[in-house]
Amino acid sequence: MNDFLTSLGSIVGTTNIRTNEAAQPYHTDERNRYHHAPIAVVLPKNTAEVAEVVKLCVAQNPPIAIIPQGGNTGLVGGAAVLPDHPSVLLNLTRVNAVRQIDEANRTMTVEAGVTLEHAQQIAQEHGLLYPLSLASEGTATIGGNLATNAGGTQVLRYGNTRDLCLGLEVVLPNGDIWSGLNTLRKNNTGYDLKHLFIGAEGTLGIITAAVLKLFPSPVDTLTAFIATKDLHHIVQAFNTCQKQFDAQLTAFEYISPNALNLVCDQFNHQHPFADDTQAHVALIEISHTSTQTDALNALHQSFNHHISAAIEQGFIKNAIVAQSGTQQMQFWQIREQISAAQKRVGKNIKHDISVPISAIANFVEVTCSQLEQHYPSIEPTIFGHIGDGNLHFNVSRGQAFANANALMAAETDINQIVYNQVQQHKGSISAEHGIGLLKKDWLEQLKSPVELNLMRVIKQSLDPLNMINPGKILNQ
Amino acid sequence: MNDFLTSLGSIVGTTNIRTNEAAQPYHTDERNRYHHAPIAVVLPKNTAEVAEVVKLCVAQNPPIAIIPQGGNTGLVGGAAVLPDHPSVLLNLTRVNAVRQIDEANRTMTVEAGVTLEHAQQIAQEHGLLYPLSLASEGTATIGGNLATNAGGTQVLRYGNTRDLCLGLEVVLPNGDIWSGLNTLRKNNTGYDLKHLFIGAEGTLGIITAAVLKLFPSPVDTLTAFIATKDLHHIVQAFNTCQKQFDAQLTAFEYISPNALNLVCDQFNHQHPFADDTQAHVALIEISHTSTQTDALNALHQSFNHHISAAIEQGFIKNAIVAQSGTQQMQFWQIREQISAAQKRVGKNIKHDISVPISAIANFVEVTCSQLEQHYPSIEPTIFGHIGDGNLHFNVSRGQAFANANALMAAETDINQIVYNQVQQHKGSISAEHGIGLLKKDWLEQLKSPVELNLMRVIKQSLDPLNMINPGKILNQ
Repeated sequence: MNDFLTSLGSIVGTTNIRTNEAAQPYHTDERNRYHHAPIAVVLPKNTAEVAEVVKLCVAQNPPIAIIPQGGNTGLVGGAAVLPDHPSVLLNLTRVNAVRQIDEANRTMTVEAGVTLEHAQQIAQEHGLLYPLSLASEGTATIGGNLATNAGGTQVLRYGNTRDLCLGLEVVLPNGDIWSGLNTLRKNNTGYDLKHLFIGAEGTLGIITAAVLKLFPSPVDTLTAFIATKDLHHIVQAFNTCQKQFDAQLTAFEYISPNALNLVCDQFNHQHPFADDTQAHVALIEISHTSTQTDALNALHQSFNHHISAAIEQGFIKNAIVAQSGTQQMQFWQIREQISAAQKRVGKNIKHDISVPISAIANFVEVTCSQLEQHYPSIEPTIFGHIGDGNLHFNVSRGQAFANANALMAAETDINQIVYNQVQQHKGSISAEHGIGLLKKDWLEQLKSPVELNLMRVIKQSLDPLNMINPGKILNQ
Repeated sequence: MNDFLTSLGSIVGTTNIRTNEAAQPYHTDERNRYHHAPIAVVLPKNTAEVAEVVKLCVAQNPPIAIIPQGGNTGLVGGAAVLPDHPSVLLNLTRVNAVRQIDEANRTMTVEAGVTLEHAQQIAQEHGLLYPLSLASEGTATIGGNLATNAGGTQVLRYGNTRDLCLGLEVVLPNGDIWSGLNTLRKNNTGYDLKHLFIGAEGTLGIITAAVLKLFPSPVDTLTAFIATKDLHHIVQAFNTCQKQFDAQLTAFEYISPNALNLVCDQFNHQHPFADDTQAHVALIEISHTSTQTDALNALHQSFNHHISAAIEQGFIKNAIVAQSGTQQMQFWQIREQISAAQKRVGKNIKHDISVPISAIANFVEVTCSQLEQHYPSIEPTIFGHIGDGNLHFNVSRGQAFANANALMAAETDINQIVYNQVQQHKGSISAEHGIGLLKKDWLEQLKSPVELNLMRVIKQSLDPLNMINPGKILNQ
């Protein structure tokens, strides 16, 4: 084993290997669920070093598995170390060069370890927008975003990470480097290999660099809260906004009464509709890129017109438009602090689910009613991205459970109720967080044997020795 | 063989099998390049019949290959029959049910044989837009669009066919049916298998149904021609429009002086800038979805403002905005009749290429100059989708070649010059038409061995007997 560490050191430099206590921050996950230690944490600097590390690991007898890791902000144990697979944890945060920015082509080529925030900044410095936006963007890396096909608040307009990527460079399980850094928007020359690696959670290869799409930066936005009587009306309001504003509608975020009251309490925000705290609320953002002030005025007039009409028709009760940049930020803080507010009141059971937009309201009604039957007084905290059909459907202790232990003891049963309804409504048990370790047993239950078999065939064909992130997504 | 035909007939009905002359229209391709006859053309009615046909073919000794076919409008021989593979041509045009439309979810689920035009109509009847738009849309099918990842004129705003698809149903090479008809916009549960089949030109499985994304229909559009002195200025004008109008910019189509003069001559169109027939021209379409007339007025004002500024700055020479729906259609006819105009003047050599947007102008300059050195007086007819970096770079007889035979004799050499420059500029030799038979030797030359090997590994893992569309894209 010492020989192996020496060889690793000769590839990446001995100062870029972590063992024992120094390794601990890397093998403790964001939600503090997984802790097993790897043989070593290795921090290569570039693609060539990554490839050499892979070749070295594969050449060991028995071979040593490789677990790729970005900013270690994942929520499902996708970069956790497994006791039954002696592994090297390959952290990519030092593989972080910005290789190219092409303003006229609206692309940038960055290495996997660049943080999302840094990528956003670079785009901004060139007068462009990299639209992916997540709570963990200061730490999460582009490689991790791609491996998990991360979502966030701007998916409605710009798509998931998958949709923002034109090309990849990947170190394959045999140590070969696939240079697929395509910068073209149209390229129909054979199988689109990048989509295999995006969202594969590092199980098919190690993403080392990517070509990202950039967009014109919005010049201004209209930010508003609307209040409705229920989730059916929220969906109706979404459809109205979508129809009128199309791609200018850049966010439509639902907040349930429970979630809104919680975040206002915990962070001393004024409730946007203080006289109607049982309202179902949506945070709406409409953006425009024109530098003409007439265009912004026309947007506001149009919004006011449609909101007034909706109030007359009865599916919106009230609306409030932010009057300044500061107020816009305050509106967004309310949305963004919901998770932190939940953390403050103790452990909770998270569900990152999606259903067709047309099924959202029924799904929530039926699921809440089933949970209520089993756990009287249960009050799920629900918020999410209406335009993506993506809800964060979380259960805190509340009045329903005597203490945190009682809540966590019910986790599997609660998951079963929620995921059964997700399946009834043709939804997904992981809209944006991935499968990792946390949900792989659920995946085995819920996916068809044909689909599971297809996934296994692909895994086996690209990684026949099962060396790259073994035991994630799929049981082998 | 008669037993085999009898068995086929018992699956699809004897009236749905074509042999001899009746088979000919199916095995003659759009460009009249490929003619070899299959054992039979089979027209199943639904997915179950497709699966049964596949199982029957695989069970023969030796097995019989299956070539999936949609509307037979492909340009690269992707559904051609090969002499060295006894094959059944599996035409999917009868698998054409509309399975579901979900207005609130903005999706529709249709079978592979639905024509693109029919899909557009169904969406329209529900007040929504299926934005894919191609010259062959009356005949081309959704299954063929997906198998080739078709492009067209609206890619700038809505993406390629790949981007318009949420889920697939596929009959696999072993006859299993993968039911992946996901209707969700976010679903991170394992490998995204649909992307393997989209663009694979029917070599990995047979697409039988798909979930398509629908969009709000534009209420009105602004359609204009601009004139510039060269292609550099066209690209600059594109970037200005893109920055100001973002996703409202739904088309930006370049037409070279040569292409514009040709189409105006052949179809008696008035040249939009009759006093400047050497201008490089773009057809611009800006759409909006708001029902507020103020919004349309603001759009026109904003467009006029930016065009005036560009004329003052010198990178646009002139502009003309269509004043009625009729005039908008006339403008589009000019663009859409270019290919037909070329056909009228005889055979031509087509290149469907893409380069980064930032490289378009240089690519055209260098390539034209190199061609001119070898073939004095050659005048390529160039047009295409600037926002996608996609040019149709076609060579007609013109003054440079004594006759059509002389032109066609130079085809390989001309291709070599063009494709070398495509590669120098990091472009693609097939932006939207695919590889099929026509370009597979070029692919072998131009792709890296690592990438070719990855594609082969995937083909072999999904289709180990090489039964589904063998010999397309890749030489085995």
